[in-house]
This record gives sequence, C-alpha cells and structure tokens, in this order.
Amino acid sequence: MEQALNKDYTFLNIHLDKIQENYKIIKKQTHSNCEIAAVIKANAYGFGQEYVVNALYKIGCRKFCVAVIEEALQITTQYDDITVYIMHGVHSRETALIAVAKGFVPVLNTLEQIYIWNEVARMQNLQLPALLQIDTGMGRFGLSEKQIDKVVNEPQIMSHIKVEYIMSHMSCAEQPHHPLTQNQLALLKKYLSLFPQTKVTFANSAGIFLGEKFQFDMVRPGCALYGINPTSNYENPMHSVVELYGHIAQKNVIEREQFIGYRAQYRVQKDDKVIVVECGYADGYMRSLSNKGICYANGYFMPVAGIISMDVVMIDASILPEEVFQSITHVELLGEHITIDDVAKHANTISYEILTTRFGNRCKRYYIGS
Amino acid sequence: MEQALNKDYTFLNIHLDKIQENYKIIKKQTHSNCEIAAVIKANAYGFGQEYVVNALYKIGCRKFCVAVIEEALQITTQYDDITVYIMHGVHSRETALIAVAKGFVPVLNTLEQIYIWNEVARMQNLQLPALLQIDTGMGRFGLSEKQIDKVVNEPQIMSHIKVEYIMSHMSCAEQPHHPLTQNQLALLKKYLSLFPQTKVTFANSAGIFLGEKFQFDMVRPGCALYGINPTSNYENPMHSVVELYGHIAQKNVIEREQFIGYRAQYRVQKDDKVIVVECGYADGYMRSLSNKGICYANGYFMPVAGIISMDVVMIDASILPEEVFQSITHVELLGEHITIDDVAKHANTISYEILTTRFGNRCKRYYIGS
Repeated sequence: MEQALNKDYTFLNIHLDKIQENYKIIKKQTHSNCEIAAVIKANAYGFGQEYVVNALYKIGCRKFCVAVIEEALQITTQYDDITVYIMHGVHSRETALIAVAKGFVPVLNTLEQIYIWNEVARMQNLQLPALLQIDTGMGRFGLSEKQIDKVVNEPQIMSHIKVEYIMSHMSCAEQPHHPLTQNQLALLKKYLSLFPQTKVTFANSAGIFLGEKFQFDMVRPGCALYGINPTSNYENPMHSVVELYGHIAQKNVIEREQFIGYRAQYRVQKDDKVIVVECGYADGYMRSLSNKGICYANGYFMPVAGIISMDVVMIDASILPEEVFQSITHVELLGEHITIDDVAKHANTISYEILTTRFGNRCKRYYIGS
Repeated sequence: MEQALNKDYTFLNIHLDKIQENYKIIKKQTHSNCEIAAVIKANAYGFGQEYVVNALYKIGCRKFCVAVIEEALQITTQYDDITVYIMHGVHSRETALIAVAKGFVPVLNTLEQIYIWNEVARMQNLQLPALLQIDTGMGRFGLSEKQIDKVVNEPQIMSHIKVEYIMSHMSCAEQPHHPLTQNQLALLKKYLSLFPQTKVTFANSAGIFLGEKFQFDMVRPGCALYGINPTSNYENPMHSVVELYGHIAQKNVIEREQFIGYRAQYRVQKDDKVIVVECGYADGYMRSLSNKGICYANGYFMPVAGIISMDVVMIDASILPEEVFQSITHVELLGEHITIDDVAKHANTISYEILTTRFGNRCKRYYIGS
C-alpha cells in the first residue's frame, strides 16, 4: 500500500549526509579547542529530531541543545555519552528533579531558576552542572547586570551548582557591522572578568562565521547545520539539505479568459496552462507565497498563480512545451533550483520559519544518507 | 512526570463540545433535506482528526471530507456507517484499489480520474460511487466545460460509476456581492440540466450562510465548525473552539534603555517590564506577528515586543501593576479576548492559516467536552 501511495503524492527528501557535512564545515570553521553543541530544538528545525541526533552522533557530535525539557525527553535512543542542554532552563522543582534524573543540563536564565537548581542539588547533596546565561543585549533570556552582581556578591546562591559555561546569545550576528554585535562582545568580556576560569559559549551559526574571537569554548550552531546561509554578504558556504517536490493533482488548459483561485486574484487567458500542486499552507507552503512563490520543472521556472489554498497551490505553467506539460508529475518547490533562502524571501520571512512551519506534515519524508 | 511538566508549559485547550455546537448551528442554518459532510482535512484544521471525527460522530455526523487518501487512512476507529469523501480524488489505479477496498468515495476531478475509477469498477464488475466535480469559476479542481460535454456525450466513460453528487467549489463565497458568486451559481445550474436527477453539493461554510439557494443537497462546512467567522459582514455566529495560553519563561525589568530581540527592533526604557513567553513561530505563532500581535492577562492587553523567535515571543508588559506582573504564569495568546480572526488580522493572513500552522506542536493539548 505504501508504495502505491508514494508516487501519487508530494514528497520531501532530507539529506542527513548533508547535515553531517555541514557539521564538518562548522568544525573546520572553529578553532581547535572549540566544542560544538548542535541545536536540535523545534524537532531539529522541522527535520526530525531523532534522525538528526543519530546522524550527528555518528560523526562525533556529543552535545545537543533543545529549547524545553519535553524535547530532551524525546531523545529515545540510549546514549550514555551525550550532554543535552535545556536552553529555557527548568521552571519548577518538579521539572528540575526530572532533569536531574535524566542527566540533562539546564541553562539557568533567572535568579529563580538558580534557586531551584541549587535547592534540588543541596537536597540531594550533589554538585549539579549548569550553564549560566547572562544577557548582553538581546533582552530575552539571562541575568541582568544587577542580577549578575548579586550572584557574584552572594556566592552561596550557587553553592551546589557547577557552572560549566557562561552563556550569552547574539541578537544581530547576521549583521556583522551592527553596533550591537561589537557591544555584546565587549559587554560579555567585561562580565567574564567576574567569572575567571569559567568556560564561555556565545556564538550561534552566524556568530561562528564572524571569526575566532566570537567562538570562545563552545559554539551552538543551528541554522547552518540545516543549510541556511549563516553569512549575510557571502555565498552560502553550507550544503542544502532538503528538497520538496509537489505532486501535480490536476492539469488545466484554460478554455476562456478567467480568474483562478480564491478571491479571484490571478487572471489567465485562453490556452494558458495551470497545474494544481498538492502542497498548500497546511503543508507549510506559506500563504504569503500567494502570487509570489516560484517552482521549477525540466528547465522551466513557473510562478505561483493566485492565492494559495490550504491543500494546494496553483502554478501558471503556460511556459511549458506541450510534451513537458503532459509528462511531468511533480514540480520542485524547494531544492537545487529554488533555495530555502529564495522561498523565505518570496514569503517575506526568514528561512528558519519556512523550515519549522511543518513541511512534510502530509508529505512522504525520505531520509537520505547517514 | 506528565503533571510536573504541564504547569510549566504553554498549553492549548480544544473544546470538542463547541465543535459539536457549531455543527448544530450549521444544521439549523441548512434546509431540512440538506446533508452535511464535515471537512476534516489538514488534521481537522489542526485540531486532531481522530478527536474531531469522534465528537462529530457522536452527534450524528456520518459524512466526512478529506483532501487526500492518506488522511482517510488515518481514521482508525472502525465505523461501519460513515462515508469518507476524498476531495483530490485518486491519481492511479493502485490508489483507486485501496480506496475501493476501504470503501472511500473519491471526488473525480479530471477525465483521467474518471477513466481510472471506471476501469477499476469494470475490472471488478462493480458500480462504484463517486462525486463528480465540475469547475464553475474557481479554476482549480473539476471538469472544464469541454470535458463536461465529453462525459455527457460519451456516457460509456462512466458506465461503471454511480455519481452520487455533482460537486463544485466556490471561490468568493465570503464576498456575497462578488460577481463570481452569482456567476458560479448560474453556471452550476446551467450544467446541472445535463445531469438530471443527480444530487448536488456546492456550498462551503461561507456558502451555507448565503442561504438556501446555495445549499442544494449537501454542504461541506470546514472553517465554521472550527469557529472561524463564515460571514463577512456580521458578528461571528460560531463558537470559538480554541484557547492558547503561553507559559512565561522569564520576566525582565529593564535596567537601562535598550533594544530587545533579534535585529534590535523594539526599544524599551528603564523600568519597563518584558515577559518572555514560550510560543514562537515554530509553535505556530507566526513571525509576521512580530511587533503586531497582542496578548491578554488579568484585564490587560499587551503588545508583542520585537521580532518573534523560533521558540518564544517577548511581550511588553509595562502596563501590568507590580503584583500582577509578579504573579502571572501564563498569558492568553488566543481565546476569549483575542479571537482567531484577530490573530489572523494581526498576522496579515486568514484564520485558516493560523489554525493549520501547527499550534500545539510542542504545547500540551487538552481536549475538553464531548
């Protein structure tokens, strides 16, 4: 049954070997003592957490970052030599106890989280590892300047915590000349003088490519692993890891001038060709691609025609020669000819949102390599 | 473990009883001989297909519409008295055989689909049921005028098919005065003279509320079941069926004027309050809500502050009195005070996309009622 359905539907290829190659590119880009903690939150940016963890483990990755503890609990393969960092930390004593039992390492972002983690450690007479996040300008997670002063001046607050890394997060790393990028680095260095001998993690993907002075002791690549360009002004150094081929459900040759699709937003003429492709906004092909997106088949680029429906997108295929129009069964919506960054640009968003907005919910997913 | 995690995270309430009430409202809105086929494609618009099918079955719904056969195969409860319509039809003989085996009824949208379905029926010496879609102006699925002529003039093409309903789909039903709405109805009636004694299905949710002359023998409500307003100029007659409460991961009191979030797009002043809520675009809180969305807590509406991250959204909570700021653990992102239509407007899209864009991927989901 599986085989009968496959050729009739939209499918997604996920190249685990390319994710591995991207990891190696990042490894080369970092200095020799720099560790790498792969970011696998949001179901590994939509690619399937379990597949990505296994692929990266095989080539030596032993550190992984998730956003919330629920994601850490999804790692079902029993690895006894990996470290899982929980970026949002633990919000209650009950959750902290689960983290302790499982060996997860939380990022402590607030004084409250420090109190919880320290208390849980003290109760069990343990020294528990943690990352301590300080805010250097993102204004999101981590301790403020006053709170940093407090933990420095009252060290008993962290009496049972072993801070493995001081962590901070960059807000404008993809804009190397943004004043905040240098300001955050300067502020981080100022605060670090208060934590001598503690290791440091600062850079996300874009930060890694800003050079060694941003890399410190551990980097946390996310987007670059998944093929998003981590540089702003250079050709993408990463390999694309995904292809989305939309299945053609119907081919129409227009019999008289008319509008097509919801709200009548695209006009076609007699003898124009329209194809109906099974990938709508419920499949992650965002509605903002209406009249903006493009697809590719057999040497031809073709525009999205009209408003995208929940389950399908219509394509103006008038450019296709008759024999190609008759023979094609799928179009490339994302892949070799249309990059994830292209799709994001057409949709007026960033590549990250395209990846995490549930491509492959109703598609067949094929995992390749690894 | 489950209980410990729940109070620490974002959660979604799905009111199955409200979906049932919406079904009853639709029932009242339709004439007495009109059947209802509930649209449950795209995982029942994101709400969970199995839950919604069960809830609707309990109150008498026996007809359901999915987009693709994979969705029909997801209905795992064994009902021996329901009909499942596959709106995109079957694209190959192999898939058609699966549909026959399972008793699914396809919509035949193209001559090719008619040939396949007729051939599969002929091979097994059966008369197979189907819906026959004709295009009246949407330009998407269904037979063109020339193709309708062909099936009428060559009835042997459908020798082994029992057409249960002639189907067509409205493109501008939510705009009652759009010329296409009346044009589609007129064209449908013209074509129907070619299929005497055959039942008809035309109206989606918005079409149902345009009145009896659009309802024919069966209607296909989708959005209205799920609480989206099916009328354009009237107060929403449907019940809201969903609430999304975002968990607060961190509360910040700003110590000096600064920008917050990615790309430094929101400025805060000393003593402003910012809360970090665990619901980002990977959770379906679309990035286009950056600096546009709102949330609610304890009588106060508060704006989204800056660019939405993958896993969190920041909220400017400066309006909150100190004791409320200290005590709240969640904010309403969607619910009694902020409707799905509000969120869609802020995100510059339609409510359907908000619902189907994976709310609840990492949240806890609570099913209420039914």
